Amino acid sequence: MSTSRGGNGRRTAARGTYAVGDERRLRILDAAVEHFAQWGFHASSLARIAKDVGITQGGLLHHFRSKESLLVAVLEHSDEQDVERFFGTEPASAAECFTTLTRLASHNATRLGRVKMFNVLLAEASNPGHPAHAYFTRRNSEVLRRMTGSLRRAVDSGELKPDADCPAVAREAIAVMDGLQLQWALDPEGVDMVAQFRAYADRTLRAITVTGRGLPA
Amino acid sequence: MSTSRGGNGRRTAARGTYAVGDERRLRILDAAVEHFAQWGFHASSLARIAKDVGITQGGLLHHFRSKESLLVAVLEHSDEQDVERFFGTEPASAAECFTTLTRLASHNATRLGRVKMFNVLLAEASNPGHPAHAYFTRRNSEVLRRMTGSLRRAVDSGELKPDADCPAVAREAIAVMDGLQLQWALDPEGVDMVAQFRAYADRTLRAITVTGRGLPA
Repeated sequence: MSTSRGGNGRRTAARGTYAVGDERRLRILDAAVEHFAQWGFHASSLARIAKDVGITQGGLLHHFRSKESLLVAVLEHSDEQDVERFFGTEPASAAECFTTLTRLASHNATRLGRVKMFNVLLAEASNPGHPAHAYFTRRNSEVLRRMTGSLRRAVDSGELKPDADCPAVAREAIAVMDGLQLQWALDPEGVDMVAQFRAYADRTLRAITVTGRGLPA
Repeated sequence: MSTSRGGNGRRTAARGTYAVGDERRLRILDAAVEHFAQWGFHASSLARIAKDVGITQGGLLHHFRSKESLLVAVLEHSDEQDVERFFGTEPASAAECFTTLTRLASHNATRLGRVKMFNVLLAEASNPGHPAHAYFTRRNSEVLRRMTGSLRRAVDSGELKPDADCPAVAREAIAVMDGLQLQWALDPEGVDMVAQFRAYADRTLRAITVTGRGLPA
């Protein structure tokens, strides 16, 4: 099996070794989540990540040609799973939109390492030179665009009051989610992130629905 | 003037050099804010901070004996100013409490570097081994305790509905503030952090006050 150090691994892997290569790739991604969560991007080291996986740095570079490309792969891998699971279908109403976000909060409450990593990288990425700056900028505006669209359709359908400020509600919901993740990561035992988000979603829906109805039970 | 490298600088500075020493100390703190904001704690370097201030690393160690003590000094210096300015007096009502938070959001909107630093360190500090873990844990519970107290007094005074969930509202307000700071730092031109926080404070007050009144104009 011949591979170039700069390649992405999958392209050059010989037939029959795919499974082994994919399994190793996933183990590298898992280890990278923990390292980025603990050290941030700048202080993380490919050598130490490789050591944790039990491979050489050359072995790691076979899959990811730089720390930047490993970072992007970690973020995209994580998002791919979420998009399919939570945003595969367009929500039929604002209530369904907030229900989906509450389910996402529940799911996040089962993966502390991933949430810690997300918190650290999102904070670091405010610097335009950060390798995840473009990713988080694009992701934020995409989430905002989709959620604003769902809320606007709910205004049109008569579910939400005509004066509901859809972009502001969408941005606020994202802020609550991100802010609760910061508090929960600092004190996972003391903060009930899911109950807090559910209470927020319920009160917000009551304030903007025509019927005054909140989150479905 | 004789000083020990391990000392805190102020104690051993000769009379008459206080002003110079204090001014240099403030310049170190300002530079540290920028470095922690850009690199996080782990990847920041005392040598590079000293270089930015135009002093030697030995000169910096004269004021702060380690990167950990510089970090703590930066956080405490920043908080001292805020506590005096915004929380010097107990708020007389829930409306005043939310008004104060909105003023704090306005003030934060004038200091991007400090907000970026706060975002990065708060995110990193979820790891129990982080030198700011104790600081943020204490700070979060202190802010939560004070705000919950203000809201409970507002229930007792008849301003807020008896069923207002005071600790949950306090935690949510902190989450909105922190979450908006993350979004604003990523896109300072595109996100109106102050208007967003004001809208949140107004809607939340309307939902929990007996009169349904929101934020005072």
